[in-house]
Amino acid sequence: MKGLKISTVNCGIKYKNRDDLLLVTFDGAASVAGVFTQSSMPAAPVVWCKKNIDKGSARALVVNAGNANAFTGKSGEEAVAKTVEAIAKQLGCSKEEVFVSSTGVIGETLKAELITAQIPQMVKNPINDKSLWDKASAAIMTTDTKPKLVKKTCIINGAEVSLIGFAKGSGMIAPNMATMLGYIFTDANIASDSLQILLRDACNQSFNSITVDSDQSTNDTVLIFATKSAFTHEINNSHAEELKDFREKLNELALELAKMIVIDGEGAKKLIEIEVEGARTKVQAKEVAFAIANSPLVKTAIAGCDPNWGRIIMAVGKSCNEAQPQTVIVKIGDHVLTKDGEKHPNYIENAVHEYLKNHEVKISVNLQLGIERGVVWTCDLNEEYIKINKDYRS
Amino acid sequence: MKGLKISTVNCGIKYKNRDDLLLVTFDGAASVAGVFTQSSMPAAPVVWCKKNIDKGSARALVVNAGNANAFTGKSGEEAVAKTVEAIAKQLGCSKEEVFVSSTGVIGETLKAELITAQIPQMVKNPINDKSLWDKASAAIMTTDTKPKLVKKTCIINGAEVSLIGFAKGSGMIAPNMATMLGYIFTDANIASDSLQILLRDACNQSFNSITVDSDQSTNDTVLIFATKSAFTHEINNSHAEELKDFREKLNELALELAKMIVIDGEGAKKLIEIEVEGARTKVQAKEVAFAIANSPLVKTAIAGCDPNWGRIIMAVGKSCNEAQPQTVIVKIGDHVLTKDGEKHPNYIENAVHEYLKNHEVKISVNLQLGIERGVVWTCDLNEEYIKINKDYRS
Repeated sequence: MKGLKISTVNCGIKYKNRDDLLLVTFDGAASVAGVFTQSSMPAAPVVWCKKNIDKGSARALVVNAGNANAFTGKSGEEAVAKTVEAIAKQLGCSKEEVFVSSTGVIGETLKAELITAQIPQMVKNPINDKSLWDKASAAIMTTDTKPKLVKKTCIINGAEVSLIGFAKGSGMIAPNMATMLGYIFTDANIASDSLQILLRDACNQSFNSITVDSDQSTNDTVLIFATKSAFTHEINNSHAEELKDFREKLNELALELAKMIVIDGEGAKKLIEIEVEGARTKVQAKEVAFAIANSPLVKTAIAGCDPNWGRIIMAVGKSCNEAQPQTVIVKIGDHVLTKDGEKHPNYIENAVHEYLKNHEVKISVNLQLGIERGVVWTCDLNEEYIKINKDYRS
Repeated sequence: MKGLKISTVNCGIKYKNRDDLLLVTFDGAASVAGVFTQSSMPAAPVVWCKKNIDKGSARALVVNAGNANAFTGKSGEEAVAKTVEAIAKQLGCSKEEVFVSSTGVIGETLKAELITAQIPQMVKNPINDKSLWDKASAAIMTTDTKPKLVKKTCIINGAEVSLIGFAKGSGMIAPNMATMLGYIFTDANIASDSLQILLRDACNQSFNSITVDSDQSTNDTVLIFATKSAFTHEINNSHAEELKDFREKLNELALELAKMIVIDGEGAKKLIEIEVEGARTKVQAKEVAFAIANSPLVKTAIAGCDPNWGRIIMAVGKSCNEAQPQTVIVKIGDHVLTKDGEKHPNYIENAVHEYLKNHEVKISVNLQLGIERGVVWTCDLNEEYIKINKDYRS
């Protein structure tokens, strides 16, 4: 992609034998938009990004893995200040054009000098072979077992435009805002306000529709940068017909990344899609879908390929006081499980058990209360989740 | 306890080599009060009890384990009807005076004849040795590893009064109403309306303040029965001074049973008490406490004796948008972890690690927003929870 350069190094914050610091620099001022955690305990880099996102202009992005720089008080703010100052100085840009993210343990002091010491050589020696995106997506990992990278192309007014995104996340992944860390880059020439609307829409049906463990992080951040190098005419209407293909590809890219996060959820072995239809409102549909997705009993049953659909009924019952046993319809795959408030007469447990051996499974609920629907994605819950999180810091 | 008789048998619904059916009969009409699941998918026996609880009069309680009789449609209603009819006929009482509970798998047809076939001999041959309460509390277990039984005595106007309660529950245990199955018996002479108020108050600070896995059951029921045999004067004011000792002992009994449920949570090894103070409202205090208690990341960290207190900060941040990093104070045991929005300068990780090796641990959060407080109890999250729930029905 034209208009940007990427460097990664091991800077010694936590990990050995792998890169844990990413720097992306833009040749000119890129348009930028972002969505962030709604936590009342946001990490210092999130506070910084939120403060500057509305200015809409980016010259650099720096991300470290291994330390979240969250709940770190004054020293956390200072670490961000030192980092952006070092980069701004090196690039000759304003500090407000430098965006920062951190991921890792909460409450540990981040030593900014480990980052700032690397900046000059990272700016001078960007990666100049084809590995740059692979390296970028690998450098931001924590307990992720694999990098998550998606590339798309689309057409805007006849010009070919690239869309490349990567993300990280495997625990503390939950709904209700931009989830985890995700970065999307495009060479399209789109104004930052329009990017913001496009990003918000893409996130609502992707990153904001997934859950691994119902826990919302202090550091969740999704940023999109547009280097404007693919064409000269700036687009500043997010609803413009000329952005139709771009919008579709952006939505696809966000959803693919979000699903990759779920599949790589800590200890996960299955991707579970939960569709709730026949809801009175979209909010109700998503509430019921998330109640199913966040139920440890549903998630363990699916881990065991056990068609214990009573647990789905339980989750509907606890999340939707309007629902009626007589009318709710539950399906696993194409198998209809319920009818008239009890088990469907044609239900064959063994057939559903066989279906649940697939790596991707679908649960559908029709509330028969209205016409709205919602879809969320989660993973199954296995012993490995517990092992990983008991031992996270040891 | 005077005024009641207890029988238990194995009736063949699910378990071998253990009793799974409990019948309690009252010599006269006992006062009764109850609280029930708020699920919109309540089990057939819950629907029956809710319909009849306001009549306030009980002659019998029957409980089966191994089948929840939930989401069983018409056949579930019929199973309840046949059961109460058989008991009413045997006792010569009205059907509305027979209370029913079921616990076990959801969505499987309950064969009422397995229960009704046992009724005549159960009524004729109650247990007449000292084991009756132990047998009663054991007969209602499912994945519980031990029975949960508490006995108290108190004084009302000089008369000695007994209070005996037992409960079951180890998965699908969550807040927001009477949780799981619990039964409390007393020989006090208290009117049912007053019992209802006393029970509601006792449940709010006990059964409604615990969570094992955030999943609310379709069958949750707590019932209290008063045989009135300890004294003749009926008390019909729940706030009466003469009930002071009774109220205290009832609250203690409910809390002890609730904690026994948490300690016996599926795979649990530790009891975790979470106190949130300095909240603007009681609701806010309990919301934050439950966000901590339901976080799988907090629960696994404590399972691993890992003082990963950033996860507590995460849970505060996701559940309370008024909270401020600068003022929130987090403690584990007596160890103060935070100050001015960062790690406390005197924090010694190893000391907290040692503290977390205890079987009972306490987390305290002071939001410094107001004067209200709330306390909830949960357990740690271990691999065994997953194992139990993957294999529940196999």
